[in-house]
Amino acid sequence: MGRPGERRSPRGLAPLGAGLRPGPTNTITDVEGIEVGHRTADAPPYCTGTTVVLARRGAVGGAAVRGGAPATRETDLLCPQRLVDQVHAVVLTGGSAYGLDSAGGVMRYLEERSIGWRVGTGREEVVPIVPAAALFDLGRGGSFAARPDPGFGYGAAAGATSGAVQLGSVGAGTGALTGAAVGLRLKGGVGSASLALPGGGHLGALVAVNAVGSAVDPESGRFYGEPWLFEDEVQGLGAPAEHELAAARSAVPPGRAGAGGKGPEGAPPGWRAESTVIGVVATDAPLTKVEASRLASVAHDGLARAVVPAHTIFDGDTLFALATASKPFPLLGAPDPLGGAEPPGAPGPPTGVATPASPAARAASLAVLSELAAGCVARAVVHALLAATPGAGAPSYRSAFPSAQRT
Amino acid sequence: MGRPGERRSPRGLAPLGAGLRPGPTNTITDVEGIEVGHRTADAPPYCTGTTVVLARRGAVGGAAVRGGAPATRETDLLCPQRLVDQVHAVVLTGGSAYGLDSAGGVMRYLEERSIGWRVGTGREEVVPIVPAAALFDLGRGGSFAARPDPGFGYGAAAGATSGAVQLGSVGAGTGALTGAAVGLRLKGGVGSASLALPGGGHLGALVAVNAVGSAVDPESGRFYGEPWLFEDEVQGLGAPAEHELAAARSAVPPGRAGAGGKGPEGAPPGWRAESTVIGVVATDAPLTKVEASRLASVAHDGLARAVVPAHTIFDGDTLFALATASKPFPLLGAPDPLGGAEPPGAPGPPTGVATPASPAARAASLAVLSELAAGCVARAVVHALLAATPGAGAPSYRSAFPSAQRT
Repeated sequence: MGRPGERRSPRGLAPLGAGLRPGPTNTITDVEGIEVGHRTADAPPYCTGTTVVLARRGAVGGAAVRGGAPATRETDLLCPQRLVDQVHAVVLTGGSAYGLDSAGGVMRYLEERSIGWRVGTGREEVVPIVPAAALFDLGRGGSFAARPDPGFGYGAAAGATSGAVQLGSVGAGTGALTGAAVGLRLKGGVGSASLALPGGGHLGALVAVNAVGSAVDPESGRFYGEPWLFEDEVQGLGAPAEHELAAARSAVPPGRAGAGGKGPEGAPPGWRAESTVIGVVATDAPLTKVEASRLASVAHDGLARAVVPAHTIFDGDTLFALATASKPFPLLGAPDPLGGAEPPGAPGPPTGVATPASPAARAASLAVLSELAAGCVARAVVHALLAATPGAGAPSYRSAFPSAQRT
Repeated sequence: MGRPGERRSPRGLAPLGAGLRPGPTNTITDVEGIEVGHRTADAPPYCTGTTVVLARRGAVGGAAVRGGAPATRETDLLCPQRLVDQVHAVVLTGGSAYGLDSAGGVMRYLEERSIGWRVGTGREEVVPIVPAAALFDLGRGGSFAARPDPGFGYGAAAGATSGAVQLGSVGAGTGALTGAAVGLRLKGGVGSASLALPGGGHLGALVAVNAVGSAVDPESGRFYGEPWLFEDEVQGLGAPAEHELAAARSAVPPGRAGAGGKGPEGAPPGWRAESTVIGVVATDAPLTKVEASRLASVAHDGLARAVVPAHTIFDGDTLFALATASKPFPLLGAPDPLGGAEPPGAPGPPTGVATPASPAARAASLAVLSELAAGCVARAVVHALLAATPGAGAPSYRSAFPSAQRT
């Protein structure tokens, strides 16, 4: 993982955010008010874990579910028309729907600290708001029953820090796999990326990549998300040798040899609801709940670009958005797309929010911010696979393709 | 526009649909039961039009709205929990929300032929189901008031045929523009693409491309959607010369010179709700209403890949799905992802539908079909820009970049 790019801009960034660079750690904790903790269980019979994105001082939240087989908790509450407008943590976890219990442990951690939505005058009268999404990794460590419980969530929250996020085969990414549907099974994991925004704020993404699709083009061995990276964000990344690619494509995953073989049209096995990419995009900009929902929705375009196929009926692809509101609203795009003409009767921006010149200018900034978030998601997917280590019966990108790394 | 590819597969297709090729016309009318008609008004003060995708014998329909500023009609009816499960036409039109009136003309055309949802025993007692989406092109021909009316819809329907669809600056694409947000304004238009499926059926997409984003990378001048094309689908497409690219990037669109200039962060003007990509994906496979909705949703991944930025709050990006059910359900992907084990108590496939081996196999086929639909959308976006002719104050890709075409 290299330093911020200096020369060519990543795809999509040149006209929209020219001059922008990744934040200091190039992970989601560059966003002020965001901490991340992992609980990793990678000793048999476990191969799973839980990741917590903690917003101890609260954050405005949104969510967008675009996969066909989601496992989620508290997403209804994030709909803009619902009351609660503060989220205190987002849980990403292995264990499929069973793993959602880990969110209870995060609630306990927060309750003990009196952090939550206040429902009374007593110090203890809080309900922490902890949306969660789970990915499927059941049985990958040897036992179907070895999966995250509330202790996983508590442990991940207790270990959360604002330092650089540990990436790869950790937390929710411990048992993650990719590529079954295209016959190129590689270890998935946790990835993250960030951008420094004008005005001193940041934008970041964290994903746990466990897709039925692939982040790597099985024909070229290159990452679909590569054009979205800063030029020197990853040092010395090239195309793998053909023999490495052929070997990776022909590998039959352990424990799956009897699971159907090749279909009549030549498609490989692997179309099962054993997948899902889940993640969080976060910013310290002050977004409304509606804006956070929009950010989460558009961020999925980063998945569409970095994972092929994405959003299948077997994936539960779900992204959350968090806005910690500790920095000014960044002015991105044209300051006033209506050329100075305020639309008659247009409502002003929400009180207490740094003010772009007009509602239209604020919308333009949100549009740019959303596209930048999609870029962070695409970059985070690449980082997830690059940081992964072999496990769950699959090689990692780096172990399968040593020739793709010139450094 | 070339013939079906023979060698390398397009991105995403190799492991999922190896051996698949575009249909005979490589447009959406390759799908049995689908006809398309345009009404084009390109003489001043008009620069707009209407396109009708006609399913005279009915089709199961779905829709997915992902842009922030949609103009639609009858999309609520397409929600799976609503009653009506047959659509008789989809209208794509210029004229922004005003243009939605054109759908009334299509209803009249269908009513005269007694085509519609039957609400009584009399021959005339039908209500044609005609969902519609509009894109913004108001004022591009010189008059804000010169826009599609019911006569546009009637004329487009009356001219609909099952032959190869006319592409480019026609119908709903007549006044379409792209790229304002990234400072590379090129003429948009109508594009289409298709695939021949196993079993004799087809899958196709038709889009009217009018994006605030760009289908062309402003740094390289190449189409974002290019990797999704068959190798010889477009003959002799290369990168434009740097001077052509610089000239296109610096062109100020007519009538916009006073609209704000450069923003403080260097972003160009053009962030206005004057955009929207609208389209239809269609197949002759027998999909349920739920499956058609899923197809429409995943097809948006093709927009995410071929247009950057996509799905902005200024776009009304909306895709419809139609399934005419005249061909068998295509078996795509593994025939039985659960290795022969039928899930206990799983419901069988809907009656009257060609039957994959199990519900899981049907879901796998739907997942592949959805990804293939996203590919068709990405290819259709490229075809839209390649077929466009200069207009609405913008050059076309071919007029701006003659050096990008070796033939």
